[in-house]
Amino acid sequence: MSSQLYELHPIAKRSGRNDARTEGQHAREAIVQGLMMDTPLLVGGILRHAATVHGRTDIVARTVAGAVHRYTYRDAYARCRRLSAALRSLGVASGDRVGTLAWNTHHHFELFYGVPGIGAVLHTINPRLYDETITYIVNHAQDSWICIDAATLALAERLAPALPSVRGWIYMDPASDLPKTSLTNVHAYEALLAAASHEAEWPEFDERQAATICYTSGTTGAPKGVVYTHRSLVLAALLMSTADMIGVLRSGDSEAAMPIAPLFHANGWFMPFTAPMNGQKLVLPGRHFEAAALGELIDGEGVTAAAAVPTVWFGLADHWHGRGAGPASLRIALVAGSKAPRKLVDELAALGIPVGQVWGMTEVAGLRSTLPPGAATRPAEEQLVWRMRQGRIGYGTELRLLDDDGAELPWDGEAAGHLEARGPCVAAGYYKDAAPSTTGWLSTGDVARIFPDGSIDIVDRSKDVIKSGGEWISSVTVENAALDHPAVLQAAVIGVEHARWQERPLLLAVLRPGMETQTSADDILAHLRTRLASWWVPDAVSFVDELPMTATGKVRKAELRERYGRPPVADGAPAQRAALG
Amino acid sequence: MSSQLYELHPIAKRSGRNDARTEGQHAREAIVQGLMMDTPLLVGGILRHAATVHGRTDIVARTVAGAVHRYTYRDAYARCRRLSAALRSLGVASGDRVGTLAWNTHHHFELFYGVPGIGAVLHTINPRLYDETITYIVNHAQDSWICIDAATLALAERLAPALPSVRGWIYMDPASDLPKTSLTNVHAYEALLAAASHEAEWPEFDERQAATICYTSGTTGAPKGVVYTHRSLVLAALLMSTADMIGVLRSGDSEAAMPIAPLFHANGWFMPFTAPMNGQKLVLPGRHFEAAALGELIDGEGVTAAAAVPTVWFGLADHWHGRGAGPASLRIALVAGSKAPRKLVDELAALGIPVGQVWGMTEVAGLRSTLPPGAATRPAEEQLVWRMRQGRIGYGTELRLLDDDGAELPWDGEAAGHLEARGPCVAAGYYKDAAPSTTGWLSTGDVARIFPDGSIDIVDRSKDVIKSGGEWISSVTVENAALDHPAVLQAAVIGVEHARWQERPLLLAVLRPGMETQTSADDILAHLRTRLASWWVPDAVSFVDELPMTATGKVRKAELRERYGRPPVADGAPAQRAALG
Repeated sequence: MSSQLYELHPIAKRSGRNDARTEGQHAREAIVQGLMMDTPLLVGGILRHAATVHGRTDIVARTVAGAVHRYTYRDAYARCRRLSAALRSLGVASGDRVGTLAWNTHHHFELFYGVPGIGAVLHTINPRLYDETITYIVNHAQDSWICIDAATLALAERLAPALPSVRGWIYMDPASDLPKTSLTNVHAYEALLAAASHEAEWPEFDERQAATICYTSGTTGAPKGVVYTHRSLVLAALLMSTADMIGVLRSGDSEAAMPIAPLFHANGWFMPFTAPMNGQKLVLPGRHFEAAALGELIDGEGVTAAAAVPTVWFGLADHWHGRGAGPASLRIALVAGSKAPRKLVDELAALGIPVGQVWGMTEVAGLRSTLPPGAATRPAEEQLVWRMRQGRIGYGTELRLLDDDGAELPWDGEAAGHLEARGPCVAAGYYKDAAPSTTGWLSTGDVARIFPDGSIDIVDRSKDVIKSGGEWISSVTVENAALDHPAVLQAAVIGVEHARWQERPLLLAVLRPGMETQTSADDILAHLRTRLASWWVPDAVSFVDELPMTATGKVRKAELRERYGRPPVADGAPAQRAALG
Repeated sequence: MSSQLYELHPIAKRSGRNDARTEGQHAREAIVQGLMMDTPLLVGGILRHAATVHGRTDIVARTVAGAVHRYTYRDAYARCRRLSAALRSLGVASGDRVGTLAWNTHHHFELFYGVPGIGAVLHTINPRLYDETITYIVNHAQDSWICIDAATLALAERLAPALPSVRGWIYMDPASDLPKTSLTNVHAYEALLAAASHEAEWPEFDERQAATICYTSGTTGAPKGVVYTHRSLVLAALLMSTADMIGVLRSGDSEAAMPIAPLFHANGWFMPFTAPMNGQKLVLPGRHFEAAALGELIDGEGVTAAAAVPTVWFGLADHWHGRGAGPASLRIALVAGSKAPRKLVDELAALGIPVGQVWGMTEVAGLRSTLPPGAATRPAEEQLVWRMRQGRIGYGTELRLLDDDGAELPWDGEAAGHLEARGPCVAAGYYKDAAPSTTGWLSTGDVARIFPDGSIDIVDRSKDVIKSGGEWISSVTVENAALDHPAVLQAAVIGVEHARWQERPLLLAVLRPGMETQTSADDILAHLRTRLASWWVPDAVSFVDELPMTATGKVRKAELRERYGRPPVADGAPAQRAALG
């Protein structure tokens, strides 16, 4: 079938045109490069925007001591540039790592701009890690300075002798509060700023330059450093700011955003960038993550969107139920870090607070799992289906599902597979670590289903999923079913080796105070049988006093597997109370 | 003032650390490059996202003949890649320009992806330009193929002999409708797609490669080509999709977006990119810009956000007032191209449709002028103040105001100055034209005020502002005041040379049909005196039958100045009916 309709026509011949010319006979003049300004995407531009357009909008932060500090984006911008000048005066140069052992204070916020503003690399460190882990991370990153506060001073003193790359310390709380310390070369943050001769103008440089480094708080293996570029942070903040995130992020003046997750966790879930980008009021809880203190700040500052892990939200829900009312201002509870249990969604719903789950990970910056627009007006059952998922895939990060053999799986809401990600906000590798993936895709370590509408259901971590008789059992699903039982406070499900089925699930449960004597393993199992396929019901329940947790509220399952992952769990054996070590 | 708090401490000495080391003594190991995936920002990824996540969402477009064509993003994605394969089979290669003389059809939409998808450059041409201008533009851009439809066939036949770079034509309407034509090497679009052997996989390439080229429809001088990169288009679409644009763009399933501005105008105001990026239904009016046809499509497809120039909105407002009701679905009327007159804002408000003004220009892609969030709930007078401005500056493009001497002016809502722009979505120069600005800023050619909250008021075009006695008079303000008079249908104000005051304003007005005999120049002047400072009131009013307009509805003021810009307009001379040539 020829698609050419008409042959050479006399008029064209007269005009000297010749359609018999082949492609090569045309002098080709290609426009390969466009002609737009080559302005780099740099983190500093976000705060500059906030300072010029939203200059009077507040940043409110508790200090380590608990006082409320309040200033504007305009003030913060000036102080961040003064900080940059001070860092330079200390010899900090482009590419140098500046570490932080700090909580969610305004000083910590300032470091998010003052350090990358001059091309140095902000390295936020989780102070709740084991001493040896922090030592490993600082030595691996070769931090040149570390910023600390009253809450992390003792930790710093303990670790300092083993940190030879550290040239000095910056103490962010009032110098007058600093006790005699074993640390050397300690500078007071405020004195450094006061002594700085000027507010630095942030230079322009390649947007692929490193801006921040976060080590994954892995539950196994050595921590690995994800090195974010300015480009990736700006794009991540943009992706998380789109209208498609309407269920999650709202615009400017009408939003007060509060990252309850620590700022050292995956760039504070990008809120230090998304809030100023959109002119949102930013509320930071300092180190005060207790429910009462958080609740007071949410009420007092009219917080409309806050982000935390399920454990923190459970505490807040208890607090609000205790006083008989939720906060008037809060329009969405963003749940990330791990999947929101049904119980949490219900408890917050009873307070009038809808849940928005956000899936992401240190290696996948700014992935937007979004609620569908208009979700709030849909029937309750439909809303619940949505709220139990981790939202819908937004533009900017591609996802795919693979089976164990690497074949791609359909997005039918049925097939569960290994979730892989790709895009400009996805890690290409780890700092001084193994070579990056050769496939061009990052393996997220999650097992997920994707529905035809692009919504995601994270089934489990690949390493936590239980393989039983050739099929997968989601430990997360079984845990959430267990949490529905009124007596269960915390739950963890692990696979235990099994001769016939390869693995069988074991439930480790912490009971609510006062419920220990009136709750049996059989009660729990009977409850689970009403909610799960029979072969998903654990073979045993062990009650424990507590579960080992990471600083971000995740259960250390590797530790549990180490301890409980081998038999004896006889096929069909009665559930038993585990001996507690 | 020393900021160092503590001197060297014995423990540190024991550990071998030495704070007297200078910076140079540390073996510096800089992290200059980050470790994120180097995935380029390419236009094709936007449609791929829509096809995978919003695959069932509709694109609805009128054909040139007026029929309604409906398909999904999934269908469109497949057809666009088939188009890419077809273009390659015609010899179109990376960097080649493919022109279009076309209206807002689904074929035109497909070209927005099928052409840049393979690295070729889409050149959208305004078919309403003068023949000589189109000839100039095509020869300047060296288009290799031009896509046409039934409405532009005659134009193409007329111009073809003067367009030696054009190797052939692609006819997008049904081949069966094509009359005998003088064009040579004409291919039918649908036949090309049917004959294509496959759906091309779009390759990855440098995001700074050219994707589209638009010539500015300048009212004076030779047209100039703005060459957009893939990077700039993707970023522009992202900037225009942020939550801060909440008053303008809404998310996904709940939005049906309709660019009434022609797709050849500044990338269709980016709606061909923002709609699929956010999963919005896209509604295209074909070539049917008459109020009745537009109104029918808005009602029938439930359009929620439409964008057009004031002239088109005036027509729609008349249409809706005529039938006694506005469209139920439309939640915002986006006005761009020129400033919305107060009269338009009022007329649409009376129909229950709020106006959102969007400032932008061909050279400044994706500048977001946004309504403040919550605007809709503010008192009417406050809302009006906002709606009469061109919104608030969003993240991603920096703006500044300069006086005639190049000194920067404050954002105090008072000082008016030349508006300059800078950012990754701003043109660095023009294709084969003068060297780019050495200041790093683009002169927009607009005179504006910026308020402390970052909102903008475009006062005038720099070349249209009237300089009288050393002060500026905004021609736009005087025009809008004239349009408030019930008899005035159209108005243009230009400066006329004046011995004493350098320039004085002259109002050229088109009266509404039937009002000619009952309206005098004195009536108009008396009306203006109640609305303007006395020295802003024109010295004369000339009634004309029509004003010369560009294809996008802008008055050709250069033409008016040429004709009316010299005296006699005596100081204080009575207004007169101009002799019409």
